[in-house]
Parts: sequence; structure tokens; C-alpha cells
Amino acid sequence: MGYEHNVDACFADRIGPGGIARAGFERLRAEAGDALGRLAALQGSGRMALFDLPATRADLPVLQAEAERFRNDFDRVIVLGTGGSSLGAMALTAIGVPDGPELIFLDNFEPYGLDRALAGDLSRTGFIAISKSGGTAETVAQLLACIAAAEGRTGGRSLSRTFLCIAGPGDSPMRRIARAHAIPVLDHPPEIGGRYSVLTLVGMLPGLIGGYDVAALRAGAAEVLSQAIGDPRSPPVVGAALQVAAAQQRGIRASVLMPYESRLDQFSRWFCQLWAESLGKDGMGTLPVRALGPVDQHSQLQLYLEGPPDKLFTLILSDQRGQGPVISPQATGGDPALAYLAGHTLGDVAEAEGRATAATLIARGRPTRVIRIDRVDEFTLGSLFMHFMVETILAAHLMAVDPFDQPAVEEGKRRTRDYLLQAQAERERDAG
Amino acid sequence: MGYEHNVDACFADRIGPGGIARAGFERLRAEAGDALGRLAALQGSGRMALFDLPATRADLPVLQAEAERFRNDFDRVIVLGTGGSSLGAMALTAIGVPDGPELIFLDNFEPYGLDRALAGDLSRTGFIAISKSGGTAETVAQLLACIAAAEGRTGGRSLSRTFLCIAGPGDSPMRRIARAHAIPVLDHPPEIGGRYSVLTLVGMLPGLIGGYDVAALRAGAAEVLSQAIGDPRSPPVVGAALQVAAAQQRGIRASVLMPYESRLDQFSRWFCQLWAESLGKDGMGTLPVRALGPVDQHSQLQLYLEGPPDKLFTLILSDQRGQGPVISPQATGGDPALAYLAGHTLGDVAEAEGRATAATLIARGRPTRVIRIDRVDEFTLGSLFMHFMVETILAAHLMAVDPFDQPAVEEGKRRTRDYLLQAQAERERDAG
Repeated sequence: MGYEHNVDACFADRIGPGGIARAGFERLRAEAGDALGRLAALQGSGRMALFDLPATRADLPVLQAEAERFRNDFDRVIVLGTGGSSLGAMALTAIGVPDGPELIFLDNFEPYGLDRALAGDLSRTGFIAISKSGGTAETVAQLLACIAAAEGRTGGRSLSRTFLCIAGPGDSPMRRIARAHAIPVLDHPPEIGGRYSVLTLVGMLPGLIGGYDVAALRAGAAEVLSQAIGDPRSPPVVGAALQVAAAQQRGIRASVLMPYESRLDQFSRWFCQLWAESLGKDGMGTLPVRALGPVDQHSQLQLYLEGPPDKLFTLILSDQRGQGPVISPQATGGDPALAYLAGHTLGDVAEAEGRATAATLIARGRPTRVIRIDRVDEFTLGSLFMHFMVETILAAHLMAVDPFDQPAVEEGKRRTRDYLLQAQAERERDAG
Repeated sequence: MGYEHNVDACFADRIGPGGIARAGFERLRAEAGDALGRLAALQGSGRMALFDLPATRADLPVLQAEAERFRNDFDRVIVLGTGGSSLGAMALTAIGVPDGPELIFLDNFEPYGLDRALAGDLSRTGFIAISKSGGTAETVAQLLACIAAAEGRTGGRSLSRTFLCIAGPGDSPMRRIARAHAIPVLDHPPEIGGRYSVLTLVGMLPGLIGGYDVAALRAGAAEVLSQAIGDPRSPPVVGAALQVAAAQQRGIRASVLMPYESRLDQFSRWFCQLWAESLGKDGMGTLPVRALGPVDQHSQLQLYLEGPPDKLFTLILSDQRGQGPVISPQATGGDPALAYLAGHTLGDVAEAEGRATAATLIARGRPTRVIRIDRVDEFTLGSLFMHFMVETILAAHLMAVDPFDQPAVEEGKRRTRDYLLQAQAERERDAG
């Protein structure tokens, strides 16, 4: 199925008082299973569009054609989009060496990064701007700056062949900008929120431009979903119950995701958005934490082992045995302190470290879930995307919060607008 | 002083019941001030070597000479080192466009990244391996793999001119490997722990190779330290009391560091190690969290505003006004929805967003500290390094834990060795 999901070491009967009680967990699991059944019943109705996506292939030819154009015309593609408009594609394209144009995600809004990206030759640079609302201030401002910067520097190509927008249907600032410059706009599905959009064109188009197998991504997601719908003891259902039981029973405040693969570090960023925005409301929600093995053994592990027991750990371990260069017995020079390394590959060592961290956390009574994957590829990643989306939606159900809104975020946007309008007024007054 | 430190919005008299009480804070502040006085009394004795470093310049000529050699001989320098052996230099070299060789930090141990770094031409690639103990498994294994890969591919240069090691004095596996290949070794100061080593050659040498002004780094640190020692109300003393008061009085579990500058994202990683390893023991320690503005407004802010009120926020805001391209009123096409952007630079917008996030957190009664910096440069970064080192040491004092040890980390290392020895035995048995 793309991964194995082992939660044994989260339970009190295995790890002692730091673990969760089976009975409370089972109640939550049953409830989560029922909730998934109700959501699954909406499949095909359009009211739970996320569940219809994995089996969809009809959109791919059009996206493939767009991607081919970008692959032919450009050496670099700058993707403008923040939060859910970029994190999924960043996670996907982090898994391997792309064979297409260089993808540059300017997901953090700041003058420094944009200035650097726009310096130099732009004649073979394409742009994709993504905003579901079509009004995200950062993305719209970046788009305006990029259009201004590109004019006259596109190597004779029209702006309509240099830029592409993805926005929800209906009038919006991004659509009006696109119309003014005859830039094509593809529809962001209105029924799928940004943080759940990785399997839509928002993730697929950058993936296709980078040369990734996006059909395999959807296939991995499809397998997890169909298996989950058929089985109330499936990993996403169990995962949701686990997270909520840990918070309710043991006062768990943080959910640490720690893959032992740098290529999954961006996946953790994607998870952190999904988890925080979906659950962080009404005083609920645990703090998602992006950790990375083995490096964080030298940074966070001390705290994980001996700090407050208020964290649930999810390790993603891949079988790296046999990978990378061999440490020859000659190289260690017979040094007894290095004898344990001799004859092993670097992958052997990394694999042993991941297992050792799991065992050490468990020995300390820290609730620890282990997800094992065979390899980091599109199918596996699609499995993990769907796993965590379903886990998050079901956890929200168990916490009685809405997984699809983010009501608090508007407040900061309003203040930003007020500050900028105020600065304009002051400038005009000073000039007048 | 490189930064302004404003803690007003952490107190109950300003933000309501989510804030800390002045009285308890003042007791902790006085205690932290006394502790700093006792540490400062050790200056010059060698027993608090960290405090002697900022004023040191004697080591720089030797480091500069080594750096010049690396700058002349190499286009790429691969730095092997994990945790405290890399995070400081990564934070420093992230602040701007380096003018020297490309610095590649393989701080996460894994076959995939190493394979990629060693593919292709190595004739103008140099290597620096850093381990205070000289026995860090990951770094030693990487060093052995790099030596094996480099042999015959160094463009005729000897290994002793291609590799450089930094290790503590006294025999160690790394020193024995270096001796076998006549690789020069520079001394890691034994009296300074890895996570406090950024102002030693561990940070300075990569910095010099990258063309950074490391004297300014130390000067920034020196100013913060001298001011702190003279003033019991100085920022690091106040910061330590704040963090501990928040944990003790308000049940704060996480300390979120959120710079509004991508160039400080690596600084946050450095902070997370410093904080977690120094404080995470005896059940103490809050969870350090690396956030980044503005992008995490679209990821974590919802949780920060409406999730559990168990976080202390530290925003680092820089004055980006006037930076980056201007959004011309023409570009917005008279769109009333975009009027608030017209005439502003991207830096104006980013600056307004940082202020808006601070104001929104404060309006929700979340304890929020604001550190303002004028610019991201070596002096400012040196100031922040010293600020957070002193804050951490004093917070450890207030929590009655040792800021300089990391006792729990050995357990995982032992297990890793056991697993690898066991696999060797199985392999031999299978072969025999």
C-alpha cells in the first residue's frame, strides 16, 4: 500500500503510563470509522470532491500539454503561491532530481528573494501564479511585480505565453490582472481548499513540468483511500483516533513528524500546514512539528527523550540498507572505535539510526508511531498525502472542529490592508 | 545594538490573562541577572570561554589564510558536520549571496544527498569535516566515504590539500583517519560545546570561505554581551526570565521563533537546537518552533491565534520598507480591491504583514515579543547569536538544568552501534 503503519508503541499496554489506553482509543476509532463511512458515501456526488480526485485521469492530457509547453520554452519556472498553493508541489518536486526546467517556488513573500529570482536573463523563465481566491495579497503583488519585470525581457515571447494563472472561478483581482494582459487562467476547483489541493492541478501541473509521474501520485492516493473506506481499522482511521486519544488522555500538545529522508522534509512542511490550519480552532489542535532524521538526533532528540512527555512521535523510516558508498574495512584502518561501521553502506548506518531512535523513544515511554516505506517515489508520496489528509479530516471530526475553514487568518489580512492604506494617506498628506 | 527587544506584549497588564504577571517575572529577572553576574566574573579565566570569544581576534589571521586557500583552490566546499558542527555556519552563510566557493552542508546523514554531492567532477571540490568529539558516527562515516570518493579525482591535488578536519584535541577516530591520510586538523576548542560554537572556527572558517565579515559577527556578539553584563535589565536577561515565567505561570509549552526574513530561517534552526538540547532535560524545556513570516501566516497562524494558548511568540521584524519593486498604480489597473497595494514596494507590504501579525497575536492575548532589526548582516546576526546563547544559559539556570550537557543522546548512539554490529555478525554467519 505504499507504507506500513505501526502504532503498537503508542499504547500504555506496551510503553507504560506515557501511552494511551486501548478502550478510549477504540471508541474514537469506531467514531472515526463511522465518520469516514459517511464521507465516503458522498463520493461521486461532488460534495466530497477530494475523494473523487485520486481516480480522476481526464484532466491530465490538458495539464500535460501545458506542462510540455513550459518544458520546451523555459529553463526556469517561477511558481508564485503561498501556503496550500505551493506546499504540495514543493513536497512532490523535492523527492528526486527533476529532469525538466528548474522550479523556483517563491512561497515566502519578501523583496530579497524576488529581487534575486528576477535578476539576470528572463528570456527562458516562465511564471505560474496560483491563488484559489484569486486575491491572496502576496501572490497578487508578486504577480504584478513579475509582470512589470518581465516586460521587454521575455525573449520576444508574449506575456500570455510566459505567464499562467491558476485561480478559482468567478471574478477576482488575479483574473482581472490576467485579463488585462491576456494571460491564460486555469480553474482551481472551487470545492477543494488550498491545503487539500495537492492532487489537483495545483500539485499536478508543477509536478508534470518537473517530469514527475503524477498518475502514480494519484494511484498511491487512490489505494490508501479505497482501502480506508473499506476497513474501519485502516491506517488513516487509526491515525486520527491515535492523535486525538493522545491529546485527550495524555495531554499531548505536539505531533512530531520525523522522516528519516531529507527528500521528505518538504512533505513535513506540507503536513504542518494541513494539521495546523485544519485543527487549530476553538482552542483545539496540537502543534505540528517538522523534524528530520538523523540530523535532529543532534538537535531535538535530547528534548524529545528527557523534556516534558507532551509529544506524539511519527517516524517515517525507509529501507536505505545497501544504498550509498560502502565503508570499507580498510578505510577504518582497523580502528576498533570504528569497527561497527566497517563493511556497512551509509544507508545501512542511516537505517540503523532510524530504528535506534524509534527504539529509544519507545524505551523512554514516549508514544511512537512508525510508518515504514520502501522507497521515496510518487506512489509512496501519493499514499502519504492521502493518509494524512484523511487522518486530519477525521481528527477534526473527533475534535468537533471544521477541517476546511481557517477563520482567524482574515484578521491579520485586514490589519495589513489598514496599515498600507494608512501609509498611503500619510504619503499623500506629506506630498500635498 | 543590532536589535531592539520589546517584551511589553507578554504581560498580563497589557494583553490580559494570557500574559505573565510582572511580580513573578521580576523575581526571575533578578535571579537571571545575578546568574549572569556570576558567569561574567569568570571572564578571562577560561572557565566561561564563550564569553571570551567575542573580543578575540588573534585566531583570525590563521583562519583567514586557510580560507584563502580554500577560496583559491575550490569552486565547491563540502562541509561534513551535524548539529552544532554545522547549524551556526549554515545560519551565517544563509544571510546573503556569498562571493566565494559554493558551500554545501551535508548536515543530514543519508546516502542520497552524499551520492548527489559526490557525483561529477571533484577536481575543484574541497572538504571540511567537523566533529568536536572526533567520533560523531555520521561525520566520520561521511568523511571515510568522501576520502574514498575523492581519491584519484582531486585534479592531482593531495588529500592533505583537499581535506581539512576540525576536532577537539586528544586522540579520536577523526584524528586517526586524518593522520593516516596526512590531512591537517585544526583544534575545536574543548571548552566550548558544539551548540555554542558558532563564534569559534566552526562558524568562522566556513564564514571566511564564503566571504562573510566574521569580525563584524564577533563585534555584534561583543556588544550584546558587554551591554548585558553591565545591565540587569538587558535583553538576554529579560528574555530568559520571560521564557521561564511564561512556562511556569501560564503553562507555555512552545517557544515559537518567527523571523520575517527567509534569510533568518536557518538562524531559527540554529536556535531550535540550542534551546532544545540545552533545556530539554529533567522533564523541563519548552519546545522550540521554527516558523517563518509571512509564509506561515498561510500555514501556522490559524493555530497560533485560535489553538491552545500554550505558546510564546518571538517575532523578528526587519524594516523592509522601500525594498524591492514598486507596485505601480498603473499595474493595479485601478482595481479597487488592489488599491491598498498601489505605490507600495513589496518590502512595504512585507513590513506591514509582520506588524499586522504581531498586532493580531497581541489582540488575541497571545504573549508576543518583538525583536526589531534594521538589516540582516553579520553584525546583527552576531548580536542575535549572543542574545540567544545568553538567554538560553540563563533560562537553564532558572530551570535548574545544565545548559551544557545532552545526556540522553548517548542512548540512541549505543543502539545504532549494537544494530550495526549485529548485522555484521549475521552477515558473517550467513557467509560462513
